[in-house]
Amino acid sequence: MKMSNEFNIREERNLSMLMDFYELTMSNGYFVNGVSNTIVYFDMFYRKNPDGGGFSIAAGLEQLVVFVKNLKFTRDDVDFLRSKGVLSEEFLEYLLAFKFSGDIYAIPEGTVVFPNEAIVTIKAKVIEAQLIETMLLLTINHQSLIATKASRIVRAAKGRPILELGARRTHGADAAIMGARASYIGGVSGTATTIADQMYGIPSTGTMAHSWIQFFGDEYKAFETYAKTYPDTCTLLVDTYNVITSGIPNAIKVSKDVLEPIGKRLKAIRLDSGDLAYLSKKVRIMLDAAGLTDCKIVASNSLDEFIITELLNQNAKIDIFGVGERLVTAKSEPVFGGVYKLVAVEEEGEVVPRIKLSESEEKIINPGYKMCWRLYDKNTHKAIADVITLTGEVINEAAPYIIFDPVLTWKKKKVTNFYAKKLQVPIFLNGECVYELPTIEEIRDYCKNQVDSIWDEVKRFSNPHKYFVDLSHELWLVKQELIRKYRNLEEKNEK
Amino acid sequence: MKMSNEFNIREERNLSMLMDFYELTMSNGYFVNGVSNTIVYFDMFYRKNPDGGGFSIAAGLEQLVVFVKNLKFTRDDVDFLRSKGVLSEEFLEYLLAFKFSGDIYAIPEGTVVFPNEAIVTIKAKVIEAQLIETMLLLTINHQSLIATKASRIVRAAKGRPILELGARRTHGADAAIMGARASYIGGVSGTATTIADQMYGIPSTGTMAHSWIQFFGDEYKAFETYAKTYPDTCTLLVDTYNVITSGIPNAIKVSKDVLEPIGKRLKAIRLDSGDLAYLSKKVRIMLDAAGLTDCKIVASNSLDEFIITELLNQNAKIDIFGVGERLVTAKSEPVFGGVYKLVAVEEEGEVVPRIKLSESEEKIINPGYKMCWRLYDKNTHKAIADVITLTGEVINEAAPYIIFDPVLTWKKKKVTNFYAKKLQVPIFLNGECVYELPTIEEIRDYCKNQVDSIWDEVKRFSNPHKYFVDLSHELWLVKQELIRKYRNLEEKNEK
Repeated sequence: MKMSNEFNIREERNLSMLMDFYELTMSNGYFVNGVSNTIVYFDMFYRKNPDGGGFSIAAGLEQLVVFVKNLKFTRDDVDFLRSKGVLSEEFLEYLLAFKFSGDIYAIPEGTVVFPNEAIVTIKAKVIEAQLIETMLLLTINHQSLIATKASRIVRAAKGRPILELGARRTHGADAAIMGARASYIGGVSGTATTIADQMYGIPSTGTMAHSWIQFFGDEYKAFETYAKTYPDTCTLLVDTYNVITSGIPNAIKVSKDVLEPIGKRLKAIRLDSGDLAYLSKKVRIMLDAAGLTDCKIVASNSLDEFIITELLNQNAKIDIFGVGERLVTAKSEPVFGGVYKLVAVEEEGEVVPRIKLSESEEKIINPGYKMCWRLYDKNTHKAIADVITLTGEVINEAAPYIIFDPVLTWKKKKVTNFYAKKLQVPIFLNGECVYELPTIEEIRDYCKNQVDSIWDEVKRFSNPHKYFVDLSHELWLVKQELIRKYRNLEEKNEK
Repeated sequence: MKMSNEFNIREERNLSMLMDFYELTMSNGYFVNGVSNTIVYFDMFYRKNPDGGGFSIAAGLEQLVVFVKNLKFTRDDVDFLRSKGVLSEEFLEYLLAFKFSGDIYAIPEGTVVFPNEAIVTIKAKVIEAQLIETMLLLTINHQSLIATKASRIVRAAKGRPILELGARRTHGADAAIMGARASYIGGVSGTATTIADQMYGIPSTGTMAHSWIQFFGDEYKAFETYAKTYPDTCTLLVDTYNVITSGIPNAIKVSKDVLEPIGKRLKAIRLDSGDLAYLSKKVRIMLDAAGLTDCKIVASNSLDEFIITELLNQNAKIDIFGVGERLVTAKSEPVFGGVYKLVAVEEEGEVVPRIKLSESEEKIINPGYKMCWRLYDKNTHKAIADVITLTGEVINEAAPYIIFDPVLTWKKKKVTNFYAKKLQVPIFLNGECVYELPTIEEIRDYCKNQVDSIWDEVKRFSNPHKYFVDLSHELWLVKQELIRKYRNLEEKNEK
């Protein structure tokens, strides 16, 4: 298996121009107004877990790293931009020499994350921070969405392997490839997408489509040919005509005629239509009666975490689930709503927090240059709560730590017997990548450990327990002060 | 503006390995069993319009053409495949020399299509037909999904321009780029995604994000700076603090202070939060009172065809809609369920139809090598019905033509005073591309004409009139005969 970071022949594509055009109009504006060396701070965070879940899985950082490393504008790019007629010649010249020189901190891929936590924080000159916005959001939003969905589906299957089969229904080639990658981070066992194996080492597998059976016209002949070609890995698709009267009898006959005489076993049969609970139970009895107790039953057909839960509640005899479109498009909620917000500006060497107000208290952003901590119970090693602090604050593990709800501030909790871990790690410092990308297997294992560190109550698919993500007292004060300042301004305007 | 087919610097990426692994196990199976020169026929079609709509828009063909032209396997690809340990050395050698040599017929991009019609038909050696399956489905499914959604949103806006702003929430880079392309085919006026302009000539625009206002701290200062930088194209985002007490007063002041003294006009203001109906009406009054009757109101924030319809029903004063995630992820139904089915196999020079049965009559595929016709009324030029026939059949326009429901066969209609157009055109013949790709503007104009050719009753967003897609009598007989054959076989098995 190839490791993700030593094999990226297909990533040569220059996606630097994949940005909202307003990044360019703003950047040109900063440039021509002489403020382009101002250092700013941006947070990428999200406000709501998909599907009403209790947490999400961060993913997509590796592609952000590759993007930032390769970020550059060619003469062709600049010629194209000039043709738009709105950007200054000086700014276009600047773009030709552009190189990201800022700092990026991020929560590693595979980490359990919660709303309002900065998955990525940027400290950079304002133009550099703007020009990476679109791709940063795109890659983190996409892969976090799919990893989160995969984690749900994997948990629904209660230990049974999930295979990702959805390439044909994805939103373009990257959605297939990165979707397979993110699904693997979230815990699926493999993919059907060959190129995801070649590029990122996601184990790929596959056997036959209905076309194989239709091609031979005769189902027995099709199965027999396959068994002779692949005696060691024989999985047969049994629903082209009729599972019970044709598919399974033919599969059993091929096992007896072709495989067993040469000491081989029928590995699995696959059901791809019909009532999977009813059929799998009936098929299990037929296979067992024929001595094929070791033959696995694979099931597919528009599955997701809800249908898998129901099937298993009805004792469906399914050993492996193939999951397609509902995983790789995150069909039930196909948007991970990550946003990228300016939280501070350096003015004469001082970091001045910025805010964006909103009618809804919960939607007001957390201002300032910040970091995020997770408090773990020393005995159970389960996560207790997360705390967002200003950068530079330290959480003293030796003393009890008081957390409080940032809106309903009378809701307090004293945390004792805990240790605190910083969630963000440095990725780029002064434009240099300082982060060693983990292998895909390391990310997947880490993700499993992360999910294990969360209480079951937070993992319910519906109506989960709400995990605390609180603000330090210091940060809370900064936020209140800024809200007060802008509300006062508003009142003055109203007069 | 660049034309789509003369500018594809970023399409060098070789996606030949983007396929489900079972395409390879099956192909190797055909190869080692000596049947790989057999000619087969596959149809790509779908069964249900997204969102309960009355029709869909075909899109994605250009990317299929590029893929098939570039389809090849490198020594690296083959080395990787060898490492999987399941494919024969002879087959791997064959892959090194692989070139698509078959025929492809397709319904052009921008065409209105209906369930069960073959958007793409392949006639090729069986391995060639299998190896293109995944990418064929992926590109046609994705772009048809987005073009169809875009067409709905454009119709909801009743002539007001739609701007596509969703890149940051898409499923990977291709979803952003091809999503902008497909949206444009479906009728949007432009995109925020710069690279989609560079690559495919989709007009890109953009002005400012909230970060511009936050950066300057003071809203007036931010607006003033922007207006001085872009006096000819000044659009101001007015909801960072408070639209009514701060954003609009500051925008008007900047218009008076900066723009009007130099003979310029404030082009537009943008609302991105709050109640868009209430705010747009209030803002319109404020702008008009300040003499800014020509200043447009742009609105964005999780819009789709349903919300736009409601806003306009409430007389919202919105001139331009910005639509993001709900368009480019097709949020309400993010899957276009196109399938790729074997419909015939050549046996000793004869085209023998194949079928795949199903418990549900409607899901049984239409067998055989086929084509599709659209019957138009000679007076209104509106589409009356579509008819699927066997290839070689001719529809005589001079005589009345009887169409009948393929399931409820007693439902008949005599069509008179009509002309018939073939929907599919040849794209590849014997492996050579014979199709001149239209420009993106041509596709978009054609799509508009196509939508105009459909009765309004079929265009309702919910519960539309069902358009007839019938089978010719000859094709219907072939299908019944095949169903009878396999049902008889089943009965024999049951005994």
